[in-house]
Amino acid sequence: MMKRTTYAGLVDEQYLDQEIVLKGWVQKRRDLGGLIFIDLRDREGIVQLVFSEEYSESALAVADQLRNEYVIEVKGQVVRRSEKEVNNNMRTGKIEVRVTEINLLNKAKNPPFYIQDDINVSDELRLKYRYLDLRRPEMQRSLKIRNRITQSVHSYLDSEGFLDIETPNLTKSTPEGARDYLVPSRVYPGHFYALPQSPQLFKQLLMGSGFDRYYQIARCFRDEDLRGDRQPEFTQIDLETSFLTAEEIQDLTEGLIAKVMKDTLDIDVKLPFQRMDWDESMDRFGTDQPDVRFGMELKNLSDIMKNVDFKVFSNVIENGGQVKAIAVPGGADKYSRKDIDGYTQYVERFGAKGLAWLKVTEEGFNGPIAKFFTDEAINQQILTAMDAKVGDLILFAADNKNVVADTLGYLRVAIAKEQNMIDESQFAFLWVVNWPLFHYDVDLKRYVAAHHPFTMPNEEDVHYLDEGEDPHKAYAQSYDIILNGLELGGGSIRIHTREIQEKMLKALGFTKEKAQEQFGFLLDALDYGFPPHGGLAIGLDRFARLLAGRENIRDVIAFPKNSKATEPMTEAPSTVSDKQLQELDLFVTKTDED
Amino acid sequence: MMKRTTYAGLVDEQYLDQEIVLKGWVQKRRDLGGLIFIDLRDREGIVQLVFSEEYSESALAVADQLRNEYVIEVKGQVVRRSEKEVNNNMRTGKIEVRVTEINLLNKAKNPPFYIQDDINVSDELRLKYRYLDLRRPEMQRSLKIRNRITQSVHSYLDSEGFLDIETPNLTKSTPEGARDYLVPSRVYPGHFYALPQSPQLFKQLLMGSGFDRYYQIARCFRDEDLRGDRQPEFTQIDLETSFLTAEEIQDLTEGLIAKVMKDTLDIDVKLPFQRMDWDESMDRFGTDQPDVRFGMELKNLSDIMKNVDFKVFSNVIENGGQVKAIAVPGGADKYSRKDIDGYTQYVERFGAKGLAWLKVTEEGFNGPIAKFFTDEAINQQILTAMDAKVGDLILFAADNKNVVADTLGYLRVAIAKEQNMIDESQFAFLWVVNWPLFHYDVDLKRYVAAHHPFTMPNEEDVHYLDEGEDPHKAYAQSYDIILNGLELGGGSIRIHTREIQEKMLKALGFTKEKAQEQFGFLLDALDYGFPPHGGLAIGLDRFARLLAGRENIRDVIAFPKNSKATEPMTEAPSTVSDKQLQELDLFVTKTDED
Repeated sequence: MMKRTTYAGLVDEQYLDQEIVLKGWVQKRRDLGGLIFIDLRDREGIVQLVFSEEYSESALAVADQLRNEYVIEVKGQVVRRSEKEVNNNMRTGKIEVRVTEINLLNKAKNPPFYIQDDINVSDELRLKYRYLDLRRPEMQRSLKIRNRITQSVHSYLDSEGFLDIETPNLTKSTPEGARDYLVPSRVYPGHFYALPQSPQLFKQLLMGSGFDRYYQIARCFRDEDLRGDRQPEFTQIDLETSFLTAEEIQDLTEGLIAKVMKDTLDIDVKLPFQRMDWDESMDRFGTDQPDVRFGMELKNLSDIMKNVDFKVFSNVIENGGQVKAIAVPGGADKYSRKDIDGYTQYVERFGAKGLAWLKVTEEGFNGPIAKFFTDEAINQQILTAMDAKVGDLILFAADNKNVVADTLGYLRVAIAKEQNMIDESQFAFLWVVNWPLFHYDVDLKRYVAAHHPFTMPNEEDVHYLDEGEDPHKAYAQSYDIILNGLELGGGSIRIHTREIQEKMLKALGFTKEKAQEQFGFLLDALDYGFPPHGGLAIGLDRFARLLAGRENIRDVIAFPKNSKATEPMTEAPSTVSDKQLQELDLFVTKTDED
Repeated sequence: MMKRTTYAGLVDEQYLDQEIVLKGWVQKRRDLGGLIFIDLRDREGIVQLVFSEEYSESALAVADQLRNEYVIEVKGQVVRRSEKEVNNNMRTGKIEVRVTEINLLNKAKNPPFYIQDDINVSDELRLKYRYLDLRRPEMQRSLKIRNRITQSVHSYLDSEGFLDIETPNLTKSTPEGARDYLVPSRVYPGHFYALPQSPQLFKQLLMGSGFDRYYQIARCFRDEDLRGDRQPEFTQIDLETSFLTAEEIQDLTEGLIAKVMKDTLDIDVKLPFQRMDWDESMDRFGTDQPDVRFGMELKNLSDIMKNVDFKVFSNVIENGGQVKAIAVPGGADKYSRKDIDGYTQYVERFGAKGLAWLKVTEEGFNGPIAKFFTDEAINQQILTAMDAKVGDLILFAADNKNVVADTLGYLRVAIAKEQNMIDESQFAFLWVVNWPLFHYDVDLKRYVAAHHPFTMPNEEDVHYLDEGEDPHKAYAQSYDIILNGLELGGGSIRIHTREIQEKMLKALGFTKEKAQEQFGFLLDALDYGFPPHGGLAIGLDRFARLLAGRENIRDVIAFPKNSKATEPMTEAPSTVSDKQLQELDLFVTKTDED
């Protein structure tokens, strides 16, 4: 083999007149009769090769047999393209390579889809031929961005004194939380390891060990039904520190994110990020993952509506509910009654029983409920509160706090997307801080830890965990980092004394015995001089997806699972031999055919 | 909380007269009546704090209550120690900190063992209280060295254009090789993922995808019975490249190792490393993992012994066997007949039927078989061949090639250790190259791939895979990197055409159907323009162990398993709920109590 001198995609005018050696794949062949042009592709891009009798007869003969995706190595001279051949959109667009020597390194069958961006084939086919899908430039770019993120993370955290420490993947099942993937033990029949949902307890123990600053790019596992942004295995940038406040951890994280943004996309983000209380975020955006790239914030009109003789609103307020609204700029003309009916249907999923609206016209309010709004002074109050002007559409939600928040929170984002109100080139980071310690899980019908059971309440709220007090009033030293309206990661200051940890587990419904069985090793560890500590985890897959500008996290994972948690290329999961099951003392009670 | 200004272990004379804030653990308290000395420990080391009424009455009062492992933060002034207190062995030994302010951050129970090096407690206790064990300086140092290695790897491979790409941990079971850990699928009853034994096939597919240079610090899993240097999960520095020769991959790896050695231990290793053919290594050292830090090499005396009238030797030679020997310098006086009997017993495990020996004395050979060596010319040939002189002990093995190699190979190392012939401060790297493609597995009673089934034969040996030829004659483009007589890692050029890969699988006993079922996705991928490629994996755990100078890899893993593959702290693996098993459609056929 010849020794490659550079990548195809990097050959520009700097290489003029030089002899170079390139290796790669045939992207395209054009035969002009005695003159053959080959687009040669490698991971850095494409360069044009020219074959002619004049440069090498034997090379021309080989070029004659080339087909798409054949693998070749070539030696040749870099020359300027003729003027009409110049392509200014490509790094290599001003030059071409006159080939004097070529070796065919491997042949290729015709691939099931073209190796180019914007192919129109099923996800399933792309996953089955993943090795071909990954040849496409947009996939190469996506995985390169992911790589650049991890390099940046290692470099930054190393410079900040963090130690990269691996935690076990074969660990103990803790049914609190999502469903565990289990791994049967061969040595102890009926015993199972669990794959970790996160390194949470181990990283806390490392703080107990005095490592002071830990991080890991950690693989995590959750056996849950898959939605768009979920995978059975996922990766988080996981870190933990001792002796720092929540704000100091946020500062460190901002430094990390700033470096990542600079290294991956050459973007300078402005520090510090905005820090918003959870209560404020819910109030203004109806969500704890606010997208602050656009306005159209939620306004609480309850006080004003008390004075309006419109039973639908006033009843809700009397019953302890809220009336809130968003004003869609220019929405009065854009949205027909039918359009709005569509939204009414959309918000039903959040429990909304309807969607009242008013159009702001030169002549005042317009719409089915306009007749209830006859008091000019009140109408002016509404317009002022909504910061609305003629031509806007005001959408109201009147219900309990949660329904109102969900309805307007989701509506706000849906309309903004539809109306192209979002500057997609922007990366808007912010912190949502001071979360409630607990939240009520409607599926489980009980309170669960809003972050996780190891989260430290705010100092002034610790007493809520005491006997006879209401723990659900407590707020926590927890924080989420939000990017463009999506949770990028989150963290908290952790509990570092046995006493508070035991109270917390009790508030979550653990008996003393159950707490010791499940988390005894942590409780014991807290007895031996645990430092105050806290940390954070950032979802790498989502972070990479957002920076690569992709719609699905599968596009930033080399070999992802499909929505059925299977991998179409290797066909995992698969059946195994009876011998394998016998060694594990396992019997399958049901099969596909049942 | 106060803001820490530096680590305790870093406070030296540069801080003199400065006010600093430190946080850490109480290592030791000495109460001199009105004057209390505290050794404060953090991850960087220990510093001496002084409390006195003179500096702060309230701080003195707090110091009075401190016990070992209490967590504190202190503010104070750095002053010079009185001359008789100076300790030149410590970075902080010339100074102490006069404490003006202290906060007790957490109390601690008396730990089950001291937080110091060289404790004499069972491994089981250390693992149960791993968070305390990890506080000990030697454990902190070990994990820091491991961290330094991985930082170094990321930095070097990034600079060499490698992309860090994650491969799946939930993948397909491939019974060829070691035993897989299985993960039951909840979606498909009776189907299982397997945890990867290595990312081998995925990294090859990434080469098929054109990424050109891949690496990953990859977690791998093997469900095998554990020996000293094995863990159920382990980590390898895994890399793969396209279009490079075996030598070029070795060069790259040497650059990586040189950087790691410099970054971790500030050692400059000499490049290039020695490259030794597998045949030569077996011949000279009786092993493919030669320790070249000392001599005492194996010499083949078969030709000479043909002419000696000693049936034990001549019969072996006539039957196709060998007579080889090592000469132990100064061994004639050091070793009694009884000592040598001990070795005779030791080598029985390798199949040796005895251990012949001669002592070289001023009067000629001495020992039970000396009577067969009466020809002065032959005796001189032996001495010359062995490079032996008066006072040496010559140990002979006469048997088939494998028994001779094992006997003398292991004996050579055992004696060298016993005689302190090895310079333990040295790091001796070398490559063993050109391995046989297959080796005969005595347990399985069949030929298996010496490296793995995807290894490329040497070009001139490819024909051995053809119909009617003997594939076991083939040598391979494979290479192991050896450090101090231990395999640190290994790799190979891989097969990149379907034709050769199919022949290889056939030679390993795969039917066409079995090959397609197990490795169909790889075979198919080879059809679509696969580049020539090859790579290597280095065992990170062992590498870290050797650089940290530890006896057991458990000491460079934060939370390892014990020899029963359990984790005494969390008690993983554990039983799981019936609900969990039902969801997986699994039934346990046997329990501990059976």
